Formats: sequence, structure tokens, C-alpha cells
Amino acid sequence: MSHRPLACIILAAGKGTRMKSALPKVLHPLGGLPMVSHVVAAAQSLSPEKIVVVVGPGMDNVAATVAPHPTVVQENQLGTGDAVKAALGELAGFTGDVLVLYGDSPLITAATLSKMVAARNGTGDPAVVVLGMRPADPGAYGRLILGADGGLEKIVEFLDATPDERAVTLCNAGFMAFDGARMGALLSGIGNANAKGEYYLTDAVAVARAKGWTCAVVEGPTDDTAGVNSRAELAGIEKIFQNRLRQAAMANGATLLDPDTVYFAADTVLGRDVTVGQNVVFGPGVTVEDGVEIKPFSHLEGVIVRARAIIGPYARLRPGTDVGEGAHIGNFVELKNTQFGAGAKANHLTYLGDADVGGGSNIGAGTITCNYDGVLKHRTRIGANVFIGTHSTLVAPVSVGDGAYTAAGTVVTRDVAPDALSIARAPQEEKPGWASRYRAAKLALKAKKK
Amino acid sequence: MSHRPLACIILAAGKGTRMKSALPKVLHPLGGLPMVSHVVAAAQSLSPEKIVVVVGPGMDNVAATVAPHPTVVQENQLGTGDAVKAALGELAGFTGDVLVLYGDSPLITAATLSKMVAARNGTGDPAVVVLGMRPADPGAYGRLILGADGGLEKIVEFLDATPDERAVTLCNAGFMAFDGARMGALLSGIGNANAKGEYYLTDAVAVARAKGWTCAVVEGPTDDTAGVNSRAELAGIEKIFQNRLRQAAMANGATLLDPDTVYFAADTVLGRDVTVGQNVVFGPGVTVEDGVEIKPFSHLEGVIVRARAIIGPYARLRPGTDVGEGAHIGNFVELKNTQFGAGAKANHLTYLGDADVGGGSNIGAGTITCNYDGVLKHRTRIGANVFIGTHSTLVAPVSVGDGAYTAAGTVVTRDVAPDALSIARAPQEEKPGWASRYRAAKLALKAKKK
Amino acid sequence: MSHRPLACIILAAGKGTRMKSALPKVLHPLGGLPMVSHVVAAAQSLSPEKIVVVVGPGMDNVAATVAPHPTVVQENQLGTGDAVKAALGELAGFTGDVLVLYGDSPLITAATLSKMVAARNGTGDPAVVVLGMRPADPGAYGRLILGADGGLEKIVEFLDATPDERAVTLCNAGFMAFDGARMGALLSGIGNANAKGEYYLTDAVAVARAKGWTCAVVEGPTDDTAGVNSRAELAGIEKIFQNRLRQAAMANGATLLDPDTVYFAADTVLGRDVTVGQNVVFGPGVTVEDGVEIKPFSHLEGVIVRARAIIGPYARLRPGTDVGEGAHIGNFVELKNTQFGAGAKANHLTYLGDADVGGGSNIGAGTITCNYDGVLKHRTRIGANVFIGTHSTLVAPVSVGDGAYTAAGTVVTRDVAPDALSIARAPQEEKPGWASRYRAAKLALKAKKK
Repeated sequence: MSHRPLACIILAAGKGTRMKSALPKVLHPLGGLPMVSHVVAAAQSLSPEKIVVVVGPGMDNVAATVAPHPTVVQENQLGTGDAVKAALGELAGFTGDVLVLYGDSPLITAATLSKMVAARNGTGDPAVVVLGMRPADPGAYGRLILGADGGLEKIVEFLDATPDERAVTLCNAGFMAFDGARMGALLSGIGNANAKGEYYLTDAVAVARAKGWTCAVVEGPTDDTAGVNSRAELAGIEKIFQNRLRQAAMANGATLLDPDTVYFAADTVLGRDVTVGQNVVFGPGVTVEDGVEIKPFSHLEGVIVRARAIIGPYARLRPGTDVGEGAHIGNFVELKNTQFGAGAKANHLTYLGDADVGGGSNIGAGTITCNYDGVLKHRTRIGANVFIGTHSTLVAPVSVGDGAYTAAGTVVTRDVAPDALSIARAPQEEKPGWASRYRAAKLALKAKKK
Repeated sequence: MSHRPLACIILAAGKGTRMKSALPKVLHPLGGLPMVSHVVAAAQSLSPEKIVVVVGPGMDNVAATVAPHPTVVQENQLGTGDAVKAALGELAGFTGDVLVLYGDSPLITAATLSKMVAARNGTGDPAVVVLGMRPADPGAYGRLILGADGGLEKIVEFLDATPDERAVTLCNAGFMAFDGARMGALLSGIGNANAKGEYYLTDAVAVARAKGWTCAVVEGPTDDTAGVNSRAELAGIEKIFQNRLRQAAMANGATLLDPDTVYFAADTVLGRDVTVGQNVVFGPGVTVEDGVEIKPFSHLEGVIVRARAIIGPYARLRPGTDVGEGAHIGNFVELKNTQFGAGAKANHLTYLGDADVGGGSNIGAGTITCNYDGVLKHRTRIGANVFIGTHSTLVAPVSVGDGAYTAAGTVVTRDVAPDALSIARAPQEEKPGWASRYRAAKLALKAKKK
Repeated sequence: MSHRPLACIILAAGKGTRMKSALPKVLHPLGGLPMVSHVVAAAQSLSPEKIVVVVGPGMDNVAATVAPHPTVVQENQLGTGDAVKAALGELAGFTGDVLVLYGDSPLITAATLSKMVAARNGTGDPAVVVLGMRPADPGAYGRLILGADGGLEKIVEFLDATPDERAVTLCNAGFMAFDGARMGALLSGIGNANAKGEYYLTDAVAVARAKGWTCAVVEGPTDDTAGVNSRAELAGIEKIFQNRLRQAAMANGATLLDPDTVYFAADTVLGRDVTVGQNVVFGPGVTVEDGVEIKPFSHLEGVIVRARAIIGPYARLRPGTDVGEGAHIGNFVELKNTQFGAGAKANHLTYLGDADVGGGSNIGAGTITCNYDGVLKHRTRIGANVFIGTHSTLVAPVSVGDGAYTAAGTVVTRDVAPDALSIARAPQEEKPGWASRYRAAKLALKAKKK
């Protein structure tokens, strides 16, 4: 798309009182990322020259989140017109287009923003482009009143609207694109003679029309524009966001047994013929190759799962893990920062942390790596075709050579040679009749206590 | 609210044949508590002088559940009018107001009941106040027909209603408030000249009007009045109940990543900026302080989780447990009746039962307390800043002093002094080449078997 | 139902391009079984003389799935009329009724198919019976146009329909029943003079009417006829399928705390007063007897759970397992191919594979059977009233006699006599002050590394 230079202003100064949170509203996460980061990403997809974020006083954590993009502080909450005016200081001399977005409206898409920019650069050279939507229930939204030529004549607030105007289904979604060269004049023209004494950015349309400048409307999907004022609304947009990712995963050839119970991060990558069972959570940074099966109740983050591996149920894969082709990770098994070889298996009640496991090895049930000595972390190296016996404990740093065995219950503190057996085990003794005597004594004690 | 003395009658004699259960219908649980207990709680919120529960023959378990409130047995199921008459024996001489509730309609709220009592004590001194509702689909509900003065003229069953009456959207929700002084006369006036030969409480309105006494209607939310006749209906009201608790939790400042997958008990308390991941179940008696994060697939009951602790995923916290400030409970970890100190960690595959863990201690993966000797239970005491090694077994009663270590794989049967190391471990031996020979022998055996 | 001999043709040749899968569309699973297997099962419920499945070239896996039913290969995808014609070779000389079903429409029920066969054998001897439906949104479905006598006059494609025809809400669901004696003539009459140059089976109605033969319509539920062209549609029918099973389970007397989170296989059997918590997955082959409680996050397949047992949360029961009456299987416990006695308990972090456990035994936390020696699998036999201590390892083949104890941390490699204690444990040694010195040294090392 060819268009003038572009700048984006993101309004993020709202306190979000209804969130009842110590965290600024725009830092509440959607799909695991702060809402404002989604908005920044949507803005960036248009390759603007500059992105300026307007924050409230003391919102250093918002500034840190959007860095290196500059922030300006809106000292007093005097409305959206005031907020945008605060941002213009960072855009001195800029005469391209200016897009205004909202840090608490994170579902906006590059596609919708592109349509707005295209309209700004299109017929009639509109001074302002407003994003419109047609919600199922227009309710109390402001209505967009068009002229005979299809241009935007005015934005009328619901309370001020006539019955005819209220019957209009095209509503104001809030997002706006400006001709940067005329933007200063528009903002200067906005007054605050209203009940709250605030400056409303939507009034820019009236100012423009009064100057005889045209304004335009671009229609977008209502979902794109949803804003968040409460945790319930946040949960609502999370659901929309997840449904978008679920539909995309299925369209790309993954089977989700119950899509409503699979949770993605924005960057999850699923191959073809991947099957995902019910109740699976993907944190950030997961890639799953073709033909993998992920069984129910699994939780993955920061991991690559290679082709045809079988994961779960109840598998926990944590960052830095690479599960090899055709490998099996079974129930109640956790892997952290572990390279797990092709065809290897760890099927039951196991924790492997900071470990390398060679191809074809079998990790017995109840195997645990001691990767942490209370102060430092160390690595465990297990070769190929190794058989780690049940209830083995591997005290890192330690290595087990290719083809070696460890006996059930062994605590491995020294390296094991290839093809050797390592065993550390007290001899099994039997005390005949002990259990009968013990039970009798305990029961007598119990009876006495009553 | 000032009103006359109040008594409540709860009808709970229905067998609930469609439930196909050995358990009386009203004992089926909603949010973990028997339905009838919810109704009793709603009644109690009005501080009545007496609550009388009408049960069927043999329903001793219902009587035990509602104790110490008295029960009367309705010997034959002759309709709601008959059931209420049975209860009047317990209210001899009582001349205040009488509210009639239903043991299988557990979503009724104190707010709605209060409105009914207020109407009973309000203008016109109505002999009967009926709860009305406007369901989305009025279907075959009885219709409430009002007079010109807004008073209730009659309740007409759908089958007997004229087309005009069927067009009325105000329906009978069943709940009623009576003037106790006139109630005996009303009940005596109810006949059983109908298809089933039963006495219907709703006929009290016709009796009252025939005597020239006024009747009134109070409108309440349809959800409040939902009754349960089948397990599917029970599941439906559980969903309504859960949604009420979810909305309240979010309004109070908790983030629920997917509210539809978080299950509360009626008494769950969540602080501000608590984050609850997908698929978390709260049993009764859980308090979660500010800033706690509960990751997916966790299950908590009878536990207090102190500020900023991190729980899960796959954490199971059982009754009698107190998780200290900033502590971490990780995956596949179960705590039962355990005091877990501030900043302590138990991150993997661990069971702590009947234990005390001091602040700052690290419980290694695979740690298990043996709290049960087959007959009695005993306590394990772990001091502060202790490091329990991987795969440690703590045979209670036993204590580990502050700052002590236990070596990986140790079975601790005797107390460990502060700052000491406790180790119980057989020496690690190596048998070179054993694994190659073993594999060869096993494979030969396998080949032979075929 | 008495009717003529019946044959069924199942069309299963579609490639399912939109599935983006290496697997033929009809092999994608619904409720754990390939879609086409559901259709075969529905056909079989009518006891037909023959079932013929039409597949595409190279679909040997479909042929294997439907075996021993014969398949014919439709070499070129020339439409449904062509596919059915291909199948007729397998029905040479057959003059009964012929039902045409679709391998990608697996929700069809025996009840609906029976209605079609009954109509075929009913009044007017129709040459063709078409299944009709009335979807909430008729959209672009073909419309069924009836004559004055209620017979089917024609099927009109939406694009060819007049406004009056489009207003018809009775739509073509695709399923058809034919008089086998007249079917050859009908198929021969179908041409391919259309945009795609394909032979459409629906044109058989026009051919029949041109010959003066009557056609009939049978109405069925829209859900029954849903077809699958994408993974999203597959997820949609899985939800319908699951909801049918959930409603049936509740109607039969099971409580599902949140039905939307319980996943059944088609053959799951639940007794009365079974309670199923949130997030429970049933794989194939599960029977649950009366009064069992299954707690959240449990996963069962190929198992019988006997009366009043308590399962979960986080229990994994795998094929070949039988959980005895009143037994308890707790959290993070996996059973595979295990007979678990009445009243026995395995409550924490345990894996029992290929084991027999006698009644009343207590399996301590962290117990693991070593059933696999790297090459072969072996059995572990535990008697009645045995107490297996925490962190016991049972190296199969091995047996523990009735009433015996194993001490915590014991690796059991030899049989244990009844009522004996088996113990294999290194003595617990204490190194005073070791932990203080160790910490100091490690911290010095850590400081040095920085």
C-alpha cells in the first residue's frame, strides 16, 4: 500500500478504576501479552515513522512496556482531545497521516487500520477518517451521520440524537485517522463546553465540517474495536482473541477436539495433522510440528515439539525444551530446558530439568534430575539408548553413557560408562511376621488413645 | 427492613423421580452444598423466627441436613397446599408473616425474598403476595392476572387460560408470602376438585379474592426461581450459580483467564489482582489473598493462600493447608493439612501431608512425607531454610532442623539437627558391560518366546 | 419393522481438501472413532443384506477401516450420481431397497434411516425417498418442492430457485432411499449437462417424475444430517455428538457438574448416582458402576470402575484396569492393565502397571511398579491387606504376600512372604554442620563466577 508517511498515537492514560487493580489497565494481559503491546504491534504492522504513547502520571511500567517508543504524560485527564494534543509535541513538524488508537482496544487488526489509512489517502482528501461499526445492538453508541455524497457529516452522541438519528445503525468505533497537516487546527478548534468539561476527539469532525473540510467513514468489524473497562470485558475479548486463533489453527489443518478448551498464545505454531485434545494450554513460544498428538490436560510453553511426538496427558513442557521426533512424554511428566532425543520416552511421574537425553532412551517412571544444589543449577547428560531405571535420581552435574542402565532406585552421583550398569542399593532384608506384630501393637496403641 | 415476625416454610417432600437417584432431590448439590441448604440460607438471611421444612416419609437425611430447623413429614403427596398445611402444625399460634419456599429452587436470593416480605407489609395489607417473573418463553407457566388497581386478581393455569390470558407475560414463580393470621382460613378454603385430586397452594389466591381480601404480585428475576426436576436442570442452575460467582469475582478485581472454566464454592474469597488460569476448581473453604497467581489445572479446597504466592499448574491443595506469602507450589504437588512457610518452594511431584514447613525452605522434587503408618497419622516438622533433597522420604513423626540438608534419596526416620546433612544411601557401584550382556540375553529370550 | 431386503451405499470418496490432512476425510475421528465407522454402524442397525462403501483411488486405509464390508473405487470424482453408479456393480441382481449415506455425515441415526425405509415401503411405492430437514437458516440449501398430494415434485437448487421456491423452508438433506428395481433406470437417466459436468444424484427425482414415478420426503432432525468439510465443522459435530451423550448420561441418573466439560466415548456406560466432576475425559471402553465419584481432571479408557469407588482428581486409568468396589484412586496416580482390589487405596503419585492388588491394601505415595525391563513386561502381584510403604519400587516379576509391609524407600526385587516386612535401606547418617559449610562454599563459588 502506498500512502503518506504515517504516525500513530496510542491513548493509554486511563486509570481503569473498574478493573480494581494496582496494574494500569493497558498492562492487563490478552493472550499472555499486555493489551497495549497488541495495539503497538497492530500499529507497527503499518510501518509508521513514529509511535507515540500517551500515558497517565506515574505509569512508568507502561512506558517500559512500550519502549523504545516514546511516551508523553497526560497530566490531567481532560478527555481524548486533550490526550492527543499532548502527543502532538512528539510530532512537531510531522505533516503525514496520524492514526489514533486505544491501548485498551487490543483486538484492532492491521487490515482495519490499513483500510482507514487508504481512505485518508483516497478520494476527497478527507481531513478526518472515522472507523464505523454496526454492532448487533447499537445501544448508546454515538451515531455516524452521512451526507448525500457518502461523506461523514457529523458524529452525534446518543443522548443528543433525534429519533431519526438513533435509528442509524452505523456507530462510532472511536479509531480515527487525521491529515497531520490540518490536525493542529482541528484540535485547537475542540472546546470543552460540555457536562464533564472535557475535550472530546470526536468533536474534530464538527470542527472540520465547519471549516468545509470533508470527513470520511470506513466500516470495520465490531469485534476489532472492542474496548476494555472491566475484568469481565477483558475476559470477553480474550474469548474473541482465542476464537480467532482456534479458527486459524483448524483452517491450517490441526484438529482441536474441543476448540473452546484449547488456549493459544499469539505466536503458537501448529503443523498439519496435529491433534490437540481437550484442555490444553499453550504459553508463549511453542512450535508443534506435523503429526504430533497432544493429549488432554497438557501445558506447554517455550518448547518445540518435533514431528509425530506424543505428548501427555498431563504433560508439562517448560521453556528451553526440545522434544525429538516421535518421542513420548507421558503423564505427570515435566521437562524444563531439556533436549529430549528422537524416539526417547519418559512416560510417568518424571522431572527432567537442564538435561540432555539421547535418542531412543527410556526414562523410567519416577526419574528425577537434581539440577539445583540449593545455590547453582547443573546439567544432566544421558546418552542414546540408555535405560534409566524406576525411581532413579540423577545428581547433576553427571552423565550416563550410551547404552547404559541404571538400576531401579539408584542415586547416580558419579558418571556412568557406556553399556555399564550403575546400581546403588541396600540389600533387601525380610523380617518374618513383623507386619502382624506391628499391626497388633499399633491397633492396641490406637485403642488405648480413645 | 422493619416487618412483622416472619416464619418460613420450605417444601422439600418431592421424590424427584426424574433424577433417577437414591438421594432425595433436595440433597443434590449446587456449588458443593445440598440444594435445600441454599434455600435455608436464603431464608435465614431474613432472620425469621422459625424455619419449618416439609419432607417426605423416610427422608431422615434431609431432616439431618436442615437440623436444627424442625421438619414435618407430609405422609401423602397431595399437593403443595397439603404440604403447607402439614407445616402449620409447627406454627400454631403464629400470626406474623409466612413465606413459602421450595427446596428444589435454590437460586432464590435474599433480595427477592425481602421484596416479597416488604410487599406483604406494604400498601393494602395483602393476604397473599405471589412472586412473578417474566421468562423469555412464558410457555405453559401459570399466568398472573392483575386488576385495574395493579393487585393480583387470579392465577390462571395455562391449560385453563383464554387467548388473552395466555398473552400475558407475567408468570407465576411459585414463591408466596402469607399473612399468617389469615393463612389457616385460606388453606381450609383450598379444595381438590381437579384432575389429580391434589390441593394446590396457588388456589389460595382465589380463596382470598372470594373473601374480598387483596393479593399482590412482586416481580423477581426469572433465574432466581428456577426449579430442578432433572439432572440436566440441575446442571443448568449450577451454570447460573457459577456465573454469578464468576462475575462477582471479576467485579472485585480478580482476573479469570477463561471465566467459564473456573469453578467456585459459595464461600470462595479472592483478593485483588489475583489471576486464575483456565480450569481451576475451588472447593469449599478457600481464601486467596492479593496478588496470588493460580495456574491452570489446579484444585483447592479448605486452604488459605497468602499474598503473592504462586500455585500450579496441577497443584492440589487440600483442607487444613496454609500456603505462606510468596511461596511456590508447583506441578503435581499435593499439600494436605500442611503449614507451608513464606517464600518456601515445593515445585515438582511432591506430597506433603500433616507437615510444617518453615519459611524459605526448598522441598526437592519427589519429596514425600509418610504421615500414615497404616493405623495412625503423624506430623513432619521441617524448619526454616531447609533443603530437602530430591526423592527424600520423611517418615513421620520426624523433624528436620533449621538450615539442614537431606541428601537425595534419603529415607529420614530420625530427627535431623539444624545445619546438619542427613544421608542414607548405598554406595554407587558400576558393572562394566553389564547392560550389553543383559540386553543380548533378554532379546534372545524374547526371540525364543515367539 | 418389516420391509424389503435392504442394501446401503456409503459415499466416502471425497478427498476433503479443506481438512488439509494426509488422512482421508472420512477417517477423521468423531468421539474417538472414524466418521465413516459411525455411518457404517448406523447402516448396520437396519440389518441390511449388504453395505458397499465407495472410496477414492488410494484410500486403502478407508477400505481397511470398513472391512469386511466391500469397497468400490470411484476412479474420477464425477459427482454423487457417478459414485452411486460405481457401487451398483456390487449390487448386481439386487432388487430390494437401497439407502444412500455419506461417510462425512456421521450423526445420522438409526431412527431417521428407519423412517426413510418405512416411507420407501409405504403408501404410493415411491421410487425415491429423500430426507428433508428444516434448518434454522435454510440459506443456500436445495429446496424440496412438494405437490398437492404431499409427494415430492422436485428438488430445486438454490441458485435456480424462484423467490417462491426460496421461501420454502424444507431443504434437501442429501440422504436418499431407492427402489433397487428401478434404480438402474434412474441413474442412467441422470445427465451431466451442468457447470461442473458432474452427475448429481439429486437429479434422480427429476428422472423419476419424468417417468411418472412418485417420490416422497421424510423429515428428520437437521443435526442428524450435518456434514463435515473442514476441521471447524468437525469440531461442531463433535460438540453435537458430545451433547447427545451428556444428555443421555444425565437422563439415566448421573450428575455431571459441568456437562460441557465431560467428554464421552460412544460406548461409555455410567451407572446411577455416579458423580462426574469438571474436566473428565472418557476414552473408549469405560464402564462406571453405581455410586462412583469421579473427581475433576481425570482421564479413563478401557476400564471398569466398580460401585462406590472414588477416582481422582488427576487420576489416569488406562486399558485393562479394573478398580474394585469402594477403592480409592487419588491424584497423580496411573493404573494400566491392573486389577485393583475392593477397598484398596492408591492415593498419591503412583504408577501401577501390569499389577494385581488385593482387597484392602494400601499403596503408599510414590509407589512404582517396574513392569518393563527394557525388553519385556512382567507382572507384580500384591496380596490383600498389604501396606506398601512410600517410595517403594516393585521390580516385576515379584509378589508381596497378604498382610505384608514394605518399608519406605524399599526396592523389592524378591518375593515377600505374607505378614513379613521387607526392607532395603541404607542406614541414616548425620554430618553435623555440613549444610552450613556447604552453603558457604557454594555461595563463595557463585560469587567468584560473577
